[in-house]
Amino acid sequence: MDEALRQSLLTTYRDGLLKDVLPFWTRHSIDREHGGFITSLDRDGSIVDTDKGVWQQGRFTWLLGELFNRVEQRPEWLELAQHGLAFLEQHCCDPADGRMWFHLTREGKPLRKRRYAFSESFAAIACGELAKATGNQEYADRAKLLFDRFVNHVVEPKLTEVRPTRGIGVPMITINTGQELRESIDLPGANAWIDRSIEAIEAFHVHDDCHCVMETVGLDGQRLDHFDGRTLNPGHAIEGAWFIMWEGHQRGDAQLVSLGTKMLDYMWPRGWDEQYGGILYFVDIDGKPVQEYWHDMKFWWPQNETIIATLLAYRLTGDLRYAQWHQMVHDWAYTHFPDPESGEWFGYLHRDGRVSSTLKGGLWKGPFHLPRMQLMCWQIMADSQFPIHEYILP
Amino acid sequence: MDEALRQSLLTTYRDGLLKDVLPFWTRHSIDREHGGFITSLDRDGSIVDTDKGVWQQGRFTWLLGELFNRVEQRPEWLELAQHGLAFLEQHCCDPADGRMWFHLTREGKPLRKRRYAFSESFAAIACGELAKATGNQEYADRAKLLFDRFVNHVVEPKLTEVRPTRGIGVPMITINTGQELRESIDLPGANAWIDRSIEAIEAFHVHDDCHCVMETVGLDGQRLDHFDGRTLNPGHAIEGAWFIMWEGHQRGDAQLVSLGTKMLDYMWPRGWDEQYGGILYFVDIDGKPVQEYWHDMKFWWPQNETIIATLLAYRLTGDLRYAQWHQMVHDWAYTHFPDPESGEWFGYLHRDGRVSSTLKGGLWKGPFHLPRMQLMCWQIMADSQFPIHEYILP
Repeated sequence: MDEALRQSLLTTYRDGLLKDVLPFWTRHSIDREHGGFITSLDRDGSIVDTDKGVWQQGRFTWLLGELFNRVEQRPEWLELAQHGLAFLEQHCCDPADGRMWFHLTREGKPLRKRRYAFSESFAAIACGELAKATGNQEYADRAKLLFDRFVNHVVEPKLTEVRPTRGIGVPMITINTGQELRESIDLPGANAWIDRSIEAIEAFHVHDDCHCVMETVGLDGQRLDHFDGRTLNPGHAIEGAWFIMWEGHQRGDAQLVSLGTKMLDYMWPRGWDEQYGGILYFVDIDGKPVQEYWHDMKFWWPQNETIIATLLAYRLTGDLRYAQWHQMVHDWAYTHFPDPESGEWFGYLHRDGRVSSTLKGGLWKGPFHLPRMQLMCWQIMADSQFPIHEYILP
Repeated sequence: MDEALRQSLLTTYRDGLLKDVLPFWTRHSIDREHGGFITSLDRDGSIVDTDKGVWQQGRFTWLLGELFNRVEQRPEWLELAQHGLAFLEQHCCDPADGRMWFHLTREGKPLRKRRYAFSESFAAIACGELAKATGNQEYADRAKLLFDRFVNHVVEPKLTEVRPTRGIGVPMITINTGQELRESIDLPGANAWIDRSIEAIEAFHVHDDCHCVMETVGLDGQRLDHFDGRTLNPGHAIEGAWFIMWEGHQRGDAQLVSLGTKMLDYMWPRGWDEQYGGILYFVDIDGKPVQEYWHDMKFWWPQNETIIATLLAYRLTGDLRYAQWHQMVHDWAYTHFPDPESGEWFGYLHRDGRVSSTLKGGLWKGPFHLPRMQLMCWQIMADSQFPIHEYILP
């Protein structure tokens, strides 16, 4: 990667974040009347649904705090982060059981709670950034409490006890939440939680015999020859791969970098669409049909996560293969996802890259994967000395 | 519709049922080792997942009994229906609460129960057909019990009480289940249940102001300006339309026929894809983006239900517009869905008719919508005197 390319990518990521994506959301999603953020927006930023997803409240608050702490101490970002946190604190927690909701009305009345506690994990990292930004210990205490609730939450199973499974989602989010809270509030015990989660992923989900990262396995990591056991989510596994690479980078641990790149090596060929380009949503480990209807669509976030993972893998190892993969997924994504008319990215494309839905956001898409990618990749590119040959890989 | 076309369609439906679709399932889905039916099959009939969906156990059992009672008393069909019912009785009910399961292992161990009681409704009509086929009163009693459990089931809401909704699904299935059980076991009270359900659909879901059949509304039928309130399911509404037309035909009630054709009139222009043909899965009432990712795919069953509805509407009213619509949806479906290699229909096509998944069946697709369409349309075409001008519509 020559210097001109490095500079060009840096500009793409930085300016995309600061001049396109962030302004789209600050312009259209701030609810000054009822607080919080409205993220169900059409391509031009018009509101499609006034309901509020709790994930997106926490994620946008986190992003704003992260930008304040890492990029520049702009008062506007701090004010908006506090605006998000106020809504989270006032409306997003169920006093009956202390759990957080998933879906609220515009006014903050609760519509739905889910079995998982990801609302808590995103609210935790939001509080962490605000603690760092303001020095207010109450935010830090709140972040710790939410982290505890997230990691100690026992997910009520959807299925009976006949065929128990484990998914890669909870340990992945635990790693990332631990990393964020270690950075923002120096969370006690963060490393232990991260270690435990990486161990679980390596022991149960990374299958060397078939060169695969399994999304859902039996309790002991065994393959389950049913729809859900065979269904792979390559973008998700690749997201987990960069969380682990990043941990290796933070600790200077070549073994972790190596585990992360191995996960990427396993899942790139499974996820990359040789016919049209881009990362597919779901694939079956044996090439059988997948039950989920949108299996061959191209969603924004698997591309975002793969852009981070390939760039990070290249910068950590110097292996040109990762630079090539990065270029492939970057180019495909930037050719098909950005909306030339109103900015930001479309979220939902058909396999061949045609737009399937003009939604810019909803309960699932908001100001998170795309701006996080832009921020991460900008930061990686900003340091021309980013350690490429520092770690000798096993 | 001239006589040659009538004969040609009759042959297509009858032979498609008896020589293609039914043999596909009897050849590939009967589990002689553990009982019941395995319906998760790939295009060539090979098994993709051995798990068993309870809906499909009831639906295939119903179909076999219906064929025995309505078409020909073939011992093979009766034996297979009894094979299906045996599995339903042995494994599909949870003794702890009397509720039926939704998803079982091949051996019949329970994996999942759902909030809705549609397993019960399909098992009820299966028992009804076997009662009629064998004269065994125990089957009739079982059918009544299951019907009671279905209609008296209180669905545990997924949402809080903040914005209660009502869906069109339960009253629709109540109409059809009542019709089937009235036919098979002369279910006491069937007409009252059917009347109540039609009244609910007319009062709450059929919106004359916007010429629309709403899938999900507020408790009093009010429009909810959110994703789920705006999302229409035209194939589903059109299925409801023909249940009501059929009721009108059975009772000689022109008002009901008229209500059914009105529902079809409202939903054809919303569901028919002017660009590629076929019935779309979901559309937004205001043309806004839909949240469900597969909104613009072409599934098999909306086409099946629309083929029935348009043909029935034509034969009941003589209105040539319905004959034209029937030809459009019939031709589009028969051009894109049948598998020329292994028979039966693919279930999941992209908007333009390309195959998205080679699955012939799963938890959701099985021997039901397609063979029911073939049977219904065959029966409608078999009677050249099928009442066209009998009812004077208001």
